[in-house]
Amino acid sequence: MTETPTTPILDRVRLPSDMKGLTDRELKRLADELRAETISAVSVTGGHLGAGLGVVELTVALHAVFDAPRDKIIWDVGHQCYPHKILTGRRDRIRTLRAGGGLSGFTKRSESPYDPFGAGHSSTSISAAVGFAMARELGAETGDAIAVIGDGAMSGGMAFEALNHGGHLGKRVFVVLNDNEMSIAPPVGALSSYLTRLYAEGPVQDLKAAAKGALGLLPEPFQEGARRAKEMLKGMAMGGTLFEELGFTYVGPVDGHDLDQLLPLLRMLKDRAKGPVLIHALTRKGKGYAPAESRPDGGHATARFNVSTGEQQKATSNAPSYTKVFAESLVAEAECDEKIVAVTAAMPDGTGLNLFADRFPRRCFDVGIAEQHAVTFSAGLAAAGMKPFCAIYSTFLQRGYDQIVHDVAIQRLPVRFAIDRAGLVGADGATHAGSYDIAFLANLPGMVVMAAADEAELVHMVATAAVHDDGPIAFRYPRGDGMGVDMPQKGQPLEIGRGRILAEGARVAILSFGTRLAEVLKARESLSARGIAPTVADARFAKPLDTDLILRLVADHEALICIEEGAVGGFGSHVAQFLAEQGVFDRGYKFRSMVLPDTFIDHNSPEKMYAAAAMNAADIEAKVLETLGVALAKRA
Amino acid sequence: MTETPTTPILDRVRLPSDMKGLTDRELKRLADELRAETISAVSVTGGHLGAGLGVVELTVALHAVFDAPRDKIIWDVGHQCYPHKILTGRRDRIRTLRAGGGLSGFTKRSESPYDPFGAGHSSTSISAAVGFAMARELGAETGDAIAVIGDGAMSGGMAFEALNHGGHLGKRVFVVLNDNEMSIAPPVGALSSYLTRLYAEGPVQDLKAAAKGALGLLPEPFQEGARRAKEMLKGMAMGGTLFEELGFTYVGPVDGHDLDQLLPLLRMLKDRAKGPVLIHALTRKGKGYAPAESRPDGGHATARFNVSTGEQQKATSNAPSYTKVFAESLVAEAECDEKIVAVTAAMPDGTGLNLFADRFPRRCFDVGIAEQHAVTFSAGLAAAGMKPFCAIYSTFLQRGYDQIVHDVAIQRLPVRFAIDRAGLVGADGATHAGSYDIAFLANLPGMVVMAAADEAELVHMVATAAVHDDGPIAFRYPRGDGMGVDMPQKGQPLEIGRGRILAEGARVAILSFGTRLAEVLKARESLSARGIAPTVADARFAKPLDTDLILRLVADHEALICIEEGAVGGFGSHVAQFLAEQGVFDRGYKFRSMVLPDTFIDHNSPEKMYAAAAMNAADIEAKVLETLGVALAKRA
Repeated sequence: MTETPTTPILDRVRLPSDMKGLTDRELKRLADELRAETISAVSVTGGHLGAGLGVVELTVALHAVFDAPRDKIIWDVGHQCYPHKILTGRRDRIRTLRAGGGLSGFTKRSESPYDPFGAGHSSTSISAAVGFAMARELGAETGDAIAVIGDGAMSGGMAFEALNHGGHLGKRVFVVLNDNEMSIAPPVGALSSYLTRLYAEGPVQDLKAAAKGALGLLPEPFQEGARRAKEMLKGMAMGGTLFEELGFTYVGPVDGHDLDQLLPLLRMLKDRAKGPVLIHALTRKGKGYAPAESRPDGGHATARFNVSTGEQQKATSNAPSYTKVFAESLVAEAECDEKIVAVTAAMPDGTGLNLFADRFPRRCFDVGIAEQHAVTFSAGLAAAGMKPFCAIYSTFLQRGYDQIVHDVAIQRLPVRFAIDRAGLVGADGATHAGSYDIAFLANLPGMVVMAAADEAELVHMVATAAVHDDGPIAFRYPRGDGMGVDMPQKGQPLEIGRGRILAEGARVAILSFGTRLAEVLKARESLSARGIAPTVADARFAKPLDTDLILRLVADHEALICIEEGAVGGFGSHVAQFLAEQGVFDRGYKFRSMVLPDTFIDHNSPEKMYAAAAMNAADIEAKVLETLGVALAKRA
Repeated sequence: MTETPTTPILDRVRLPSDMKGLTDRELKRLADELRAETISAVSVTGGHLGAGLGVVELTVALHAVFDAPRDKIIWDVGHQCYPHKILTGRRDRIRTLRAGGGLSGFTKRSESPYDPFGAGHSSTSISAAVGFAMARELGAETGDAIAVIGDGAMSGGMAFEALNHGGHLGKRVFVVLNDNEMSIAPPVGALSSYLTRLYAEGPVQDLKAAAKGALGLLPEPFQEGARRAKEMLKGMAMGGTLFEELGFTYVGPVDGHDLDQLLPLLRMLKDRAKGPVLIHALTRKGKGYAPAESRPDGGHATARFNVSTGEQQKATSNAPSYTKVFAESLVAEAECDEKIVAVTAAMPDGTGLNLFADRFPRRCFDVGIAEQHAVTFSAGLAAAGMKPFCAIYSTFLQRGYDQIVHDVAIQRLPVRFAIDRAGLVGADGATHAGSYDIAFLANLPGMVVMAAADEAELVHMVATAAVHDDGPIAFRYPRGDGMGVDMPQKGQPLEIGRGRILAEGARVAILSFGTRLAEVLKARESLSARGIAPTVADARFAKPLDTDLILRLVADHEALICIEEGAVGGFGSHVAQFLAEQGVFDRGYKFRSMVLPDTFIDHNSPEKMYAAAAMNAADIEAKVLETLGVALAKRA
């Protein structure tokens, strides 16, 4: 079932240069073998399957025609890069994908010269490609630049910014629009309808428009297939206007799974293109693997699975995921308050808001991959008196930062930010780490910043946000399953700026912000065995600080240790600033702040990533002992 | 010359409701009087003149037809809002524009119910309008939502995101594209060429396309002017495709200075429009005031001026502006290194890069109002071996934050960030304050963060950035003129992570990051008179910290005070984290960190804003005395 497929041609291809001698017929067989190898690999590793299967032929065609690494093939987001990795010297490690020490699930510059520009977040590839292309124009040693971007990613504003600039510059650069009619969620936005119309309209009456820009580029090989050429012309005539108007020569739509179309087209473009070209390729997510094709999301992300049946082997958990707890709590609040609405940026499933949309379809907005708009749209809703919950992962919220400052915080509008995937996130690695939100939110005047210590706390924080109307409020929670704690029947609004003490102790107090609390309590057990039982408190709020609680902890203990799942500049820094102003350090006080280290931590299990960050129970225990000046005896 | 113009009709209009009884003829006279009053007011206050003059007729038409404040008129950026303020109950304070305690130069929710959504940064208005519109659909008490957005702002990605989402939703919302063929700088990008083509193309052969969506909306009043209607039809037929494809009914182009076009069109749309409508209005920046019209930037921003001659009364300074020093230093470096290129997001004048573009036109890129793309485009250039200087104001850099994290820092690409307008900025107020960049940059692994203490330091920092190839580097400097210090012949690269001591003293050390240094030295003089002469050091780097210097200062003084022109979480927080880890606080140590306060500071002179922030010499002196426990005697 997970046996390695037979791949005689692929076995001869270690690098793209090995493809140069292959006939088109062999390239087609190579694509089939590449698809089988991709399915086999992901069945072992889990990961993003559908996207890669959708670009198998594109990957083969691009590497057959262009000359990587001199030519720069830039995969937007990177979910679709597994076949590319197999063809670029990484086949021997492909079954280590997303595992600790193994290949990244995304493209990554440090991993291979064939990854000229790493990704993880969407919509960046055109900007990077235009950068490479202009460097070439200025004499840099680099060849063609080719961005491969999905239709979902195209809705991100920066893709439009890049098209607008690239079209203006007018220099040779290629954008392959990989239109699978499906980003992670069903496609959103007028652009998507536009793309659909491009190939849904009736026969073309007038091909004159086609002659305008694209006809001069028409490949001779197409003369072999009049029918196909006519279909392409139709696409060029009907559509592409949007891209043409932005300065790109539009070519397509082409069947992205048909190497008989892709190879001659790309060869012709490589030969003749002078300015910016957009190639519109139609593909199918999950193509060629029935269990993926038949899933509504095209097999976007998967656990390990049985290749024959497609059955996934998921780990089971007794605790609900934070995502689900958030969504169910929000639905419960929304049942009682019709002003509550929800906003997601193309992540209805990831944020759990699909549950909200099922219950309140009119009150749930998926704006597409468009975090900037998501935040300001939420601000508009709030200005009109609604209670918007804007649910965006920590790492993607970085994309709406100016909007948080300028449109939300300065105007003190009560937008509720539900921040999933806070802290380290596991297999998605450094690009998806939610390390900075505490720091970049907690210094905004009027912002309330909370972190849930467990899933029950999250329920209360949703309730708190629902009733907090005096300015913006944010609450963060991690990826994955909760702690398995008892769940409340109903969320109870918390008092703003009040923490809680979980365990009274002596000598040292540990003030936790977020889900490290469980590790802190573990450390407390171990420390108690040594006769040092720390007081453990949950800050709940990084802003406003519970200054009463902090001063009480300071008064009653010789040391205070803060801990948070975030980089320096956040919760601990605010506590330090407060203690300094209070003169607490003047008279001598042991203060420490445990934060994420000053390094990007590679993908691994979250537990191992937190071990690398020195933020697990053992590290907390060591920090307590070191702070108290107790020699750390060898652990049992 | 600055005498108040005679304005009999305007005198009767205190609020938009007072316009309802006016005839169209009177509305035209009102527009003329409004223009005269705007010119008169700005001649006294200085500020943004051209944008307001360009929308005088639009402002009158929108307020005559729609019913603010129930209907929400949202001015993008806000530069053009002075006429709107005059018509909405603020005429009596219009000559206090941008002065301390006076009216804001932008729209501001806290200032008036007629400002439903404040601005300052561009491209936000459509998102906000769609938010208001959807709140109305869900029952909120709000009327129509109208975004007025310039062609320059339309190049911002979030405007595209909002159009894409608004078009998809299909609900009634109005976008007025105020196309003055001129943002602050000459327009950039393919979109701009597209807009130009809309009214430059030849006669229309086929009006069929016009019937598609817009014809059903055609106003009866247009039957009075067949010629005009035909011209409009032409626009609708030829153009608008881009917007139509995004789901908006396109109407235009119309002459934005002709109330005979604007009034019937808006009345018809108010009556009949069902879905999203984009009204394309052609205007002229500075319209109706010859000295502004004749300036290349349409009189974008101006000092106080003589109304008759247009002559501006600018303050003179003996020191060059930081902006100019940056630009000249960069040109000097680029003379010796052809890999140096420069990137601006629609601010060639504001960043000084116009000087660079004059000298190296091929090596300077103005990407339009597109900070996200600017950062990742720079990353692409860097990945190809170039040395990009990406010059973006601190406040606008917030818009490229995710790109800094994801595309630059994680990939350790040597993009150079030149951060102008760091700290408090004066008349532009809270929306333009550069308060957060230290915090949001200094916790990114591998990032080097510098701040110039004076204009000579800035020269050295440009030289440092030019040779630093091991990852990203940023340097910040304030708005305005330098200190008047001696300038070096040539920039000398600084040692990364090394500060400098400027004055040796005793008891207390002040470690400054940025241009507060001058205030620190002033405070030192005053303190010396009291017998307390602090040691004064310039950190130069917030990252990496000069830990040797910090430990030496700690060892030799009983107190260390940090100061920076930024919010908590930045330089001082990094120093505190270091000192805590070193155990410095354990044994008792007086540490303080002076940062911007936890409040948005309203527009005023920079000096008064820093007084409000308690960061001037007197405040530093007080902080030293308080930290040392010396009673603050009455000042001489």
